[in-house]
Amino acid sequence: MALALSLGRRNQGACWPNPAVGCVIVKGTRIVGRGWTAPGGRPHAEPMALEQAGAAARGATAYVTLEPCAHHGKTPPCAEALIKAGIARVVAPFEDSDPRVSGQGFAMLREAGIELTTGVLSRQAGRDHAGFLLKAEQGRPMVTLKLASSFDGRIATASGHSQWITGPDARRLVHGMRARHDAVMVGAGTVRADDPSLTVRDLGIEHQPVRVVVSRHLELPLMGQLARSAGDVPLWLCHGSGADGERVSAWEGLGARLVPCGVISGQIDMADVLQKLGEAGLTRVFCEGGGALAASLLGADLVDELVGFTAGLTIGGDGLPAIGALGLQRLDNAARFRLLETRAIGADVLHHWVRAQI
Amino acid sequence: MALALSLGRRNQGACWPNPAVGCVIVKGTRIVGRGWTAPGGRPHAEPMALEQAGAAARGATAYVTLEPCAHHGKTPPCAEALIKAGIARVVAPFEDSDPRVSGQGFAMLREAGIELTTGVLSRQAGRDHAGFLLKAEQGRPMVTLKLASSFDGRIATASGHSQWITGPDARRLVHGMRARHDAVMVGAGTVRADDPSLTVRDLGIEHQPVRVVVSRHLELPLMGQLARSAGDVPLWLCHGSGADGERVSAWEGLGARLVPCGVISGQIDMADVLQKLGEAGLTRVFCEGGGALAASLLGADLVDELVGFTAGLTIGGDGLPAIGALGLQRLDNAARFRLLETRAIGADVLHHWVRAQI
Repeated sequence: MALALSLGRRNQGACWPNPAVGCVIVKGTRIVGRGWTAPGGRPHAEPMALEQAGAAARGATAYVTLEPCAHHGKTPPCAEALIKAGIARVVAPFEDSDPRVSGQGFAMLREAGIELTTGVLSRQAGRDHAGFLLKAEQGRPMVTLKLASSFDGRIATASGHSQWITGPDARRLVHGMRARHDAVMVGAGTVRADDPSLTVRDLGIEHQPVRVVVSRHLELPLMGQLARSAGDVPLWLCHGSGADGERVSAWEGLGARLVPCGVISGQIDMADVLQKLGEAGLTRVFCEGGGALAASLLGADLVDELVGFTAGLTIGGDGLPAIGALGLQRLDNAARFRLLETRAIGADVLHHWVRAQI
Repeated sequence: MALALSLGRRNQGACWPNPAVGCVIVKGTRIVGRGWTAPGGRPHAEPMALEQAGAAARGATAYVTLEPCAHHGKTPPCAEALIKAGIARVVAPFEDSDPRVSGQGFAMLREAGIELTTGVLSRQAGRDHAGFLLKAEQGRPMVTLKLASSFDGRIATASGHSQWITGPDARRLVHGMRARHDAVMVGAGTVRADDPSLTVRDLGIEHQPVRVVVSRHLELPLMGQLARSAGDVPLWLCHGSGADGERVSAWEGLGARLVPCGVISGQIDMADVLQKLGEAGLTRVFCEGGGALAASLLGADLVDELVGFTAGLTIGGDGLPAIGALGLQRLDNAARFRLLETRAIGADVLHHWVRAQI
């Protein structure tokens, strides 16, 4: 199952709106088939593994990282494919909460007399599929918030100087993380301050995540990196309903997709932004700041994972904070995250956390 | 030598003003003697190891973590003891920079025909003896700055709530770190806000580090934990020369040691504070904040090690920053620290850094 999960993670970020699933078929002590969801979401993992296994699939065990689908979509149901191939036993972490599947895949397998084992590595599988499951259950993608800061949690000096706090190894790893998410998201302030391109570079990866910018008034430079590349790499702009019509047209003309979102107490409503992104198919969003957007997400309890890179320098209290004001009075009221791992990345420290309940 | 270094570290914090040295005597493939500087600084490591070795010391190799002393102080010189015992070879990291030793110990050994190897594990030994060497070379103790903060580098909410950001495992480790330093140092703001006792608790350790409070005007509560315990555990107060005479007398009456220090641009001069602490014999100081004192030390480039504990919660930009304003304009001007280690401590992350040049 651990192997199936690692295969499934291969195309994270490239399968949306489908889940990135892995499948391993074992006959006796031999692996006879390996599969994972292809970019774009098809073919699914199970048919790929079954094709590799061929006749050896008969009587074999299939390890699948999510309940096999039971519905006829753009591909025939995977549960049917497993049955036809003569699989004797299926091992899976848990039921798919997609209402079109939700237990029906397992039911089909059981009816066909296939032995079923669930609950295997379900915690890890839950993390891997967190975005897909959240979208099915709550309509929103999962959100990873990444911050690269100094030892004292600053992302720039008072004068705005920020290049570079962390080193090349950390920045390269960030590109890898971008690629494992469906979209990279930043706030308008970051675009105005840094003019980022938000693409995945130097990793030999062709697939680019969607770039999402949250900007209530669409006050974004029409001559920057994002504007220049809007025709080549998807650029989605989440804006308030009152944004200037000329700006909307200008960005549409450049090739951007405009996503009107609700406004709440004078700020763009992040819960609505994420619902809209979920409706558009996104399951995994990688937010890279800045401080105001990070605070909006945290304040609305919409952050599922925290990724911190900490560098060995201090900027001081007059530097720019990594996260804006949260209005927190007591520590008891703060959401706690559980540490997944910490390790050195070049000269910096990576620390990766998930919401305590995941 | 690694064993000798680990023995030497046993009494770090309890030997000042002497260095905490380790010594291992090896005859053939057998360890025949182990020694380390005793609390209070005497006996030294070498006589203790030689006593264990007895007659087996003849023809043996002695691994010593610092150049053996050559001067008659309160104990006869260790170099002489090694010679008398018939040691054939001495392995050491480097020369002691104490002017009373500085090469003379090695010279005595060489004259006696003892084979000498230096340069072994000198980087680690340099770290272990950093406080002793800094005091010999620059007159000041080494400074470790410890900060326990939220994911975003805050040490309290806007309303001052700070208990607890990190968990019990991290707090216990902090007590262990205090015990390995000669003194624990905080600023007056921390004393007023938290009323700490600054003692080492629950570790079964009898020796307590000196407690140092930096307070220009001695505006410290005379009814708090420090005042109550000033007669039992050493309490040193570093104050500006203009501090109120009545307060000085009151604290002296309570048993505190008063350390008048220079003032520079309206603030107590941290370089002078450390010189005074060095003159008083301290070699290793563990600073636990708050933000203003941390900024003064960092601003004057007087921090040698950084210890960070990061918790899995966010407090936001309206919380209290871990480090006060530093006036840094560009990142190129910031001192860089080199990562020693990072690991999980309970629910939190420990990251430990040293000045890049150490």
